[in-house]
Amino acid sequence: MTSGASPSPAAASPAAASPARSQARFLRALRREPVDATPVWFMRQAGRALPEYRAVRERATLLEITRDPALCAEVTLQPVRRLGVDAAILFADITTPLAGMGVAFDIVEGRGPVIEHPVRTSADVAALRPFEPEVAVAPLLEAIGLIRGASPVPLIGFAGAPFTLACYLVEGGPSRDFPRTKALMHAEPETWAALLDHLVGATIAYLRAQAAAGAEAVQVFDSWVGGLSPLDYERRVWPHMRRLFDGIADLGVPSIHFGVATAGILALQASAGGDAIGLDWRIALSHGRHLVGDRAVQGNLDPTLLLGPWEGTEEAARWVLEENDRRPGHVFNLGHGVLPGTDPDHLRRLVELVHDHGASR
Amino acid sequence: MTSGASPSPAAASPAAASPARSQARFLRALRREPVDATPVWFMRQAGRALPEYRAVRERATLLEITRDPALCAEVTLQPVRRLGVDAAILFADITTPLAGMGVAFDIVEGRGPVIEHPVRTSADVAALRPFEPEVAVAPLLEAIGLIRGASPVPLIGFAGAPFTLACYLVEGGPSRDFPRTKALMHAEPETWAALLDHLVGATIAYLRAQAAAGAEAVQVFDSWVGGLSPLDYERRVWPHMRRLFDGIADLGVPSIHFGVATAGILALQASAGGDAIGLDWRIALSHGRHLVGDRAVQGNLDPTLLLGPWEGTEEAARWVLEENDRRPGHVFNLGHGVLPGTDPDHLRRLVELVHDHGASR
Repeated sequence: MTSGASPSPAAASPAAASPARSQARFLRALRREPVDATPVWFMRQAGRALPEYRAVRERATLLEITRDPALCAEVTLQPVRRLGVDAAILFADITTPLAGMGVAFDIVEGRGPVIEHPVRTSADVAALRPFEPEVAVAPLLEAIGLIRGASPVPLIGFAGAPFTLACYLVEGGPSRDFPRTKALMHAEPETWAALLDHLVGATIAYLRAQAAAGAEAVQVFDSWVGGLSPLDYERRVWPHMRRLFDGIADLGVPSIHFGVATAGILALQASAGGDAIGLDWRIALSHGRHLVGDRAVQGNLDPTLLLGPWEGTEEAARWVLEENDRRPGHVFNLGHGVLPGTDPDHLRRLVELVHDHGASR
Repeated sequence: MTSGASPSPAAASPAAASPARSQARFLRALRREPVDATPVWFMRQAGRALPEYRAVRERATLLEITRDPALCAEVTLQPVRRLGVDAAILFADITTPLAGMGVAFDIVEGRGPVIEHPVRTSADVAALRPFEPEVAVAPLLEAIGLIRGASPVPLIGFAGAPFTLACYLVEGGPSRDFPRTKALMHAEPETWAALLDHLVGATIAYLRAQAAAGAEAVQVFDSWVGGLSPLDYERRVWPHMRRLFDGIADLGVPSIHFGVATAGILALQASAGGDAIGLDWRIALSHGRHLVGDRAVQGNLDPTLLLGPWEGTEEAARWVLEENDRRPGHVFNLGHGVLPGTDPDHLRRLVELVHDHGASR
């Protein structure tokens, strides 16, 4: 532990959400209730940009952190302490549950997850193991309990969406265009449906286990779905996303549905589910709110601006806030994750700017 | 030459567009006039996918082709012969004019253009040379004359848009997020404006020279503009694009304004200029038409689908055509360039499918 504010093991068994806790501005915004100030957190706020995270990484790999409850809790809480954000997000990778489905993979530095045997046939799909969170990700569930006991702000659990996980599984490594994934979708629609069915079931189980362990909101990362046409999204992905959100609807835990480069499919995404829809920076927030209709929105500052001068970040942040025009139901965030090399002081100033902007109506 | 239909040197001096030629369905569609069948061509139709192109590449580099009028004409005409497309597009790279501005660069196989000394200061911008097309790209202009004499379909000239060229110049090589470009934009707005001003002037001169040499339409490729927020686009790029389109408005040659991942800025792009707006595959064509208003549209099939089974391409092509619903003002194309590895027979079948779909109203 690099900080005095270590999570206490006594907090490992999470209590039901207390009334006070459920009134946190992050959770109020997801319910589209008025807030005293716009809540803000950052995708990938844990890791990458923080020196205290890099210190941890000198003695543990990413996979080791996710297998050590105390270390995982510590890394999850680092940005809460340093940046003053309104939510913590469990430190893990969207590929973390794959090992529990019998998929051997490694996270290669600077390259991302690489799958040993890509999933490309009906036999490959049939060989995927059912995902049992209590067995497969026990340390993460334990970490959730530790974080709940120590975090002053709500904890977000998360999972990769089935399409995005399928891209990793089918391509086997990083890809820009996802040619094998799209080919499988059209050449073998039944294999594709079976693969997504499996991933939907696993994702529901994973998110339910996180909520049971104490996560107070969940985010579904469909990070690569913006590579699809609206037609392919509607026919090959939407039904599975709908089933996923139906499968977590009874949890009483709000959900965030996130993707990148989705300006052309936002209305479809919103109709599949999610209490809030994530917007990337390629669309004006007011335009995005119009497209998603009766949902909260989360976003949507260009993360690349944080690598430049503060002036660019400030201008963009004020624009995002003005685009929302004090309507309830806005969680401030970046349009995608914090980039490596981001100055943590920029992130801290950004949190202050958002909070100083004031209340929603 | 690998074909009997070599362009004739006698055609080097282009005649004014004849009445018959101006009635080509590609040009009629750009003017939003009814057509007997939807015109179709493909970005990057010349090169990459064609075996006759790869045969040329065994004896000449990309740069050498653009400096040899006969070879450039030959490569430009190859897809017209093989695929039956409704337009030819000059074979060149969007970085081709940079050498004429005094920028030393190389096109590295599998990596793209790499700039020796990236442009990052006001001194770098001041050192850029004025672009004189007749000096800098004389062989290309000569190629245009040859193609005009030999091509049965209209010839499209093109240029990279100032923002996209600036990304190459500032980053110095391939980039996903354009961090230095965005930082320059905000840290030194005057340097940024001076850079874009220079590139607008050069692009106007380049496109005017292509039209004077015989190009019957022009396309402006703002390929990377989809990485910007609507705010940055409106403030840092839009005024320059407006000036660019104003600078070619008197040519009497229709223009196409193209970008990728632009669903959130299409209305802004359309208001900057272009007789037709290019749509990538991330938005339904009817939605895109609604956003761009009173313009023709070009697009928008996912090029990655062509790497998979024919069924995926066929389904998507019929969807694109149905989304247009026989309205005048649609040029069928992919949402981005033909990908390496694409089967030319898929492209040929796609042309037939589009033509067989029938007339606009």
